[in-house]
Amino acid sequence: MAEDDHAAAPEQAAREQDLTDRVVASFDRAGDERLKTVMQALTRHLHAFLREVRLTEDEWNKGIEFLTAAGHITDDRRQEFILLSDVLGASMQTIAINNEAYGSATEATVFGPFFMDDAPRIENGGDIAGGATGQPCWVEGTVTDTSGRPVRGARIEVWEADEDGFYDVQYGDERTAGRAHLYSDDDGGYRFWGITPTPYPIPHDGPVGALLAATGRSPLRAAHLHFMVTAPGLRTLVTHIFVRGDELLASDSVFGVKDSLVMDFEELPAGTPTPDGRAVAGTWSRTRFDMVLAPRE
Amino acid sequence: MAEDDHAAAPEQAAREQDLTDRVVASFDRAGDERLKTVMQALTRHLHAFLREVRLTEDEWNKGIEFLTAAGHITDDRRQEFILLSDVLGASMQTIAINNEAYGSATEATVFGPFFMDDAPRIENGGDIAGGATGQPCWVEGTVTDTSGRPVRGARIEVWEADEDGFYDVQYGDERTAGRAHLYSDDDGGYRFWGITPTPYPIPHDGPVGALLAATGRSPLRAAHLHFMVTAPGLRTLVTHIFVRGDELLASDSVFGVKDSLVMDFEELPAGTPTPDGRAVAGTWSRTRFDMVLAPRE
Ligand SMILES: [Fe+2]
Ligand SMILES: [Fe+2]
Repeated sequence: MAEDDHAAAPEQAAREQDLTDRVVASFDRAGDERLKTVMQALTRHLHAFLREVRLTEDEWNKGIEFLTAAGHITDDRRQEFILLSDVLGASMQTIAINNEAYGSATEATVFGPFFMDDAPRIENGGDIAGGATGQPCWVEGTVTDTSGRPVRGARIEVWEADEDGFYDVQYGDERTAGRAHLYSDDDGGYRFWGITPTPYPIPHDGPVGALLAATGRSPLRAAHLHFMVTAPGLRTLVTHIFVRGDELLASDSVFGVKDSLVMDFEELPAGTPTPDGRAVAGTWSRTRFDMVLAPRE
Repeated sequence: MAEDDHAAAPEQAAREQDLTDRVVASFDRAGDERLKTVMQALTRHLHAFLREVRLTEDEWNKGIEFLTAAGHITDDRRQEFILLSDVLGASMQTIAINNEAYGSATEATVFGPFFMDDAPRIENGGDIAGGATGQPCWVEGTVTDTSGRPVRGARIEVWEADEDGFYDVQYGDERTAGRAHLYSDDDGGYRFWGITPTPYPIPHDGPVGALLAATGRSPLRAAHLHFMVTAPGLRTLVTHIFVRGDELLASDSVFGVKDSLVMDFEELPAGTPTPDGRAVAGTWSRTRFDMVLAPRE
């Protein structure tokens, strides 16, 4: 066999296939048919990967060490396995698969690791910054269903990094900033003051960051503002909006950008009157994001 | 699309393939060609798995939780990721791939999580039990290279569970038992007293155990005795021997059994004279294992 020919000889290939087949068969007695399907497919694809690359024992050891390090850095505020799924595009692929059926609804994107379920409530038109620094940004839009009917009382969670690229939870103090929830009004309308999104790196001081560095990939995410919208009888939407013109749109480290989620952010000079009459000292920006929720399955 | 037709519609399939292609391309600039090959193949096989099973978002969450739990139970004495690799046959497949080239050498099998590198030295003919309970077993054989030449001074590490199915390190005290190392003599010969191997379950109180239970699989391993043999200029051999007639040979939980590693263990009645004249109170057993080491690459 030639040095650079990685395919196994026929007898060897038969031994390897036999092993795969025995592992697949070991799941035959699973009581849950779906679990059986998933584990058997996982086994086949995992073995196909090992056989294709002819994984060495050293590489196997590195893989075990990588997963161990990811496990040990993961805690209540840090989720390295989600980061790993994100940078391998597995999170976005799962979202793509599950959004197949929701044609005219707003597209979803990655949840990310920074949502907190106890963000403060603000009134429609309120401010989510809570001390987070950055250029003020007026965000408004509507929530409708796929028939175009306004959705009143939809719960809208929004969260974002500050102008230094950090979420509140990354500061290690107890601050809550750059996150809030509000409810759509009788016309499905919503509006709030946030801050103009800026790019930031995903946490890259752990094994996932080392993987990105070793493969010449940047940890930077395109600038974005997170939304999660829930309403009775409708499918929960988890998404972001991105900033048209951001140079990182094509190289987002978690593959989260979708064309339909890239919005115009209008930059306004200092002194421009604001929609709600609020006095803003310097420049500000504004954008519009109309969301369409799919029916619940 | 029919309810039970899991293939995606053409437009959807194109979107999913485009995402996979972008993730693969993100590794194009990896400085290390081998790392690039491995990461690109991992991406393709991972995405193919997600797409084939149409993974749900709930299932993705369960996967993240599984890996997180595996990370948190893993410490210096417990390695859940190795167990996971073992029960998915990934460890044995890696070994199979890497042993392709060693035709006439003794076959390898899984390392397992219970090796300790500070086991006591015994003389050739000594006893590895150190207090581990079980029927005494006389083990002897030779170490040769693939040309049939005796290998003198080969370091032979042996370790095994006691008759209750536990390795010393599982007791949580500081005992060292059922493990030792010795060196082959001038004729490549070795011999020691161990204990007759008994089946035992892999640690199954963690997420891997839960997976086995949910899929109707037993955690039991076929009875075995571990060897690791090192000698200058020769390939390190990591293997076990198994007991002919053991009912678990066909259902070993980590797929470690190979026909060439199943040995005859002769059962001897109480009072039968022993090879070294040692007085044994009850029954004992004996086996022979001749090992052939491949040249180092
Ligand atoms: Fe984010
Ligand atoms: Fe073992």
